[in-house]
Amino acid sequence: MSALPEQVSVVNVGLPMFAEALRAQGVAVQQVDWRIPAGGDLATVSLLSRLYGDQASTVEAANAEVVRRLDSGQPQLVEVSTVAQAVPGIAGRTLLHCGPAIGFGQVCDPLRRSMRAAVVAEGWASDVEEAQRLLAGGDVALQPANFHQAVVPMASAIGPSAPVLVVADEQGGTRSYAPVSQGPGEVAWFGRDTDAAIERLRFLRDVAGPALRRIVGSAGPLDILSLAAQGVSMGDDLHMRTQAATNLLVRTWLPQLAELPGRQRGPMARFLAGNHLFFLTLAMAAAKALTLWAEQVSDSSIVTSMSRNGTTFGIKLAGSGDWHITEAPPITDALYYSGYGPDDAAPDIGDSAVLELVGLGGPAAAGSPAVAAFLGGSMADARRTTEAFRRICAGTSSRFKLPPLDFTGTPIGVDVRRVVELGITPQITTGILHSSSGAGQIGAGVATAPLECFTAALTALATRR
Amino acid sequence: MSALPEQVSVVNVGLPMFAEALRAQGVAVQQVDWRIPAGGDLATVSLLSRLYGDQASTVEAANAEVVRRLDSGQPQLVEVSTVAQAVPGIAGRTLLHCGPAIGFGQVCDPLRRSMRAAVVAEGWASDVEEAQRLLAGGDVALQPANFHQAVVPMASAIGPSAPVLVVADEQGGTRSYAPVSQGPGEVAWFGRDTDAAIERLRFLRDVAGPALRRIVGSAGPLDILSLAAQGVSMGDDLHMRTQAATNLLVRTWLPQLAELPGRQRGPMARFLAGNHLFFLTLAMAAAKALTLWAEQVSDSSIVTSMSRNGTTFGIKLAGSGDWHITEAPPITDALYYSGYGPDDAAPDIGDSAVLELVGLGGPAAAGSPAVAAFLGGSMADARRTTEAFRRICAGTSSRFKLPPLDFTGTPIGVDVRRVVELGITPQITTGILHSSSGAGQIGAGVATAPLECFTAALTALATRR
Repeated sequence: MSALPEQVSVVNVGLPMFAEALRAQGVAVQQVDWRIPAGGDLATVSLLSRLYGDQASTVEAANAEVVRRLDSGQPQLVEVSTVAQAVPGIAGRTLLHCGPAIGFGQVCDPLRRSMRAAVVAEGWASDVEEAQRLLAGGDVALQPANFHQAVVPMASAIGPSAPVLVVADEQGGTRSYAPVSQGPGEVAWFGRDTDAAIERLRFLRDVAGPALRRIVGSAGPLDILSLAAQGVSMGDDLHMRTQAATNLLVRTWLPQLAELPGRQRGPMARFLAGNHLFFLTLAMAAAKALTLWAEQVSDSSIVTSMSRNGTTFGIKLAGSGDWHITEAPPITDALYYSGYGPDDAAPDIGDSAVLELVGLGGPAAAGSPAVAAFLGGSMADARRTTEAFRRICAGTSSRFKLPPLDFTGTPIGVDVRRVVELGITPQITTGILHSSSGAGQIGAGVATAPLECFTAALTALATRR
Repeated sequence: MSALPEQVSVVNVGLPMFAEALRAQGVAVQQVDWRIPAGGDLATVSLLSRLYGDQASTVEAANAEVVRRLDSGQPQLVEVSTVAQAVPGIAGRTLLHCGPAIGFGQVCDPLRRSMRAAVVAEGWASDVEEAQRLLAGGDVALQPANFHQAVVPMASAIGPSAPVLVVADEQGGTRSYAPVSQGPGEVAWFGRDTDAAIERLRFLRDVAGPALRRIVGSAGPLDILSLAAQGVSMGDDLHMRTQAATNLLVRTWLPQLAELPGRQRGPMARFLAGNHLFFLTLAMAAAKALTLWAEQVSDSSIVTSMSRNGTTFGIKLAGSGDWHITEAPPITDALYYSGYGPDDAAPDIGDSAVLELVGLGGPAAAGSPAVAAFLGGSMADARRTTEAFRRICAGTSSRFKLPPLDFTGTPIGVDVRRVVELGITPQITTGILHSSSGAGQIGAGVATAPLECFTAALTALATRR
């Protein structure tokens, strides 16, 4: 037996208090951040053991294919059409809305207002009071946009006449849809049902949609994610901030904009000049095209849908067709417009979280000074958000490169196994809407996805036949 | 007397070989990068001693005022006019050219070609051969743009009919001028005198100039450096890369672009869509307005003019009215287009180095992934360029903030004392032109300003009456 050593160096795994006690005595300690997987819940640990054990090779092969699809698809904007003409399965008085399926009685205030505005813009009601009666009476069908290969941002609800961006991914054979951006200001997607908000919907239908149809027809297909990648290198996360990609697109389309007929040209120019968010729905449609291709892979533990309606929050895995739904989370790390605070905030809302599944939004935070402002103010805060995604993601983007990380790619492919094991859920950069007054956007911040639906999805995957 | 210590920790100042020898013996060494000031030249050290000694308080007060002016001026684009109408002191057959004063016999090949193209575009000659005869015969007066409050990029030479951006700084009461960007491609400012290059000059005179005059008249004054600051936060250095600021400007002016008459609208839209360099001359004119205000301060050791004509390189201090001129340096750290190399490269050329004096270009390299590609490829390489400027600059910009450096401002106000003391001269990010064939741009890289003219400027300042 040897004598006790004179000096020890310690590696402490887990609870940091032991390390601190040793450091206080002058002992060198290397602390390892380790936690009990899945918070120590034995049933969940058992499910994880299957997915990391017997099923590991199946799941990992599937995940590799999902990552490949998310990383290599090249969705193109091929056309601008209308919901009625382009989106499969829409008939009659139907609104496509954000998030999981929901009955009007459960719809949150901002989304109700958006639905009323859409009903009036469609001409089904002459004012918002009549629209409210139609909606409450069940005279308008409500359909999740996600059920129709579509994604809509924030508190969006769009009717059959609304213009849509038609996006095609040739390699995957998928087609996806998103509305034309309503822009900032007094707008329905921010939960407003004022005359101006309704007028904006009519402008999109009567002017912007036809103008964009003409532009895309003349300019030809647009490689959306090529522009998005340039945007990432210029400080966009492509979710909270889309300024650089929008500006690139405006310059790209300038010749076609100049050739628009006079009745469209001036209004479109003013609309685009005032809309730094224009690219958002393009990025969302592209992300949806990628995830639609990815979700055709069986047995994968990677999340391919993530969406919220202000009441519930739902996800879906590539490997299992069901939605897993829980309560919509609040938005934290928020900056509010003057006069507003957390008590005024509606829960997290919109389909835009699809961006976080393909390496944009939160995963791209480290490249975005504008997003950093919402995450604590320093670029280190933004890096932490990206690195949190890296811990729960299965792959790294080869196209979205982060200059402040010396061109490392953004994390892609949120793996539900890692989410549940580490207890780290996706952080979604997003706007904040007023919960009741119809004031519209009152700030922006970060929503942390609720763990419950990830655990449910993990359970469904591990216990599938 | 104490005994020799058992352990020593060493601070080694100067030559690193002593530190290495100690490290090899297991001794802890802190190395301090110190060099003999001014390379040990005793006459120069004596001049530095005056400027850092008896004259220090005078010089430093002057420098503080120069930095304040460079940092706080707000140059506005107020008008688009022509050289003949706007620039003071131009009459008859005169060309404004880049760099210090020069006779045609000494002009380098790319600038000669540019001059010939301008002479033909002005209608003074029917072809470039005739233009060559006029220039060689002294029938066209050559004037440095810098003598007329103007700055022109690369191998530019512009005649009286060329459109100019008119920039005013209200606070400083200065007015400055720069040509409208010729854009990329087969263009005179890249040293080409082909029909296409001449046609581009005519296009600027007949279409772009009048269109921009109309746009600025309708949109009102443009706060150039506010857009530039946004550009810096989006990866522009505003010298080698102006993409983000150009795109911001295009979106800002979109309503006015849409209202242009048909004969201007389409051509301007196509020109701007294809010209990611459009903002360069705007930034240069703004920088010139700042330095014109700054150079009214006496006794300052800060550089307020820095320009090159492909043959000579000249600087001027705020505190001393004379130009100090030496041979134009080669461009290093270069990337060449396929088929070209250092043997094909003309020396450093153009007035755009004025940007490096106000915190753009090299000082902003750390924020620019695109510039990093020319400096070694990693963001660390780009940071080194910014940090080299920090060592020779007297101040920090409060408007140009670098996200990768957690929003630290770019260095401003190149202090000739520090340049000479440390032997570190400004590094200028720039394009490379072919030295003889008329091929135009063949690459891009970094020019390191020659030390001689800084030593001459220091001497003049230290020995002024």
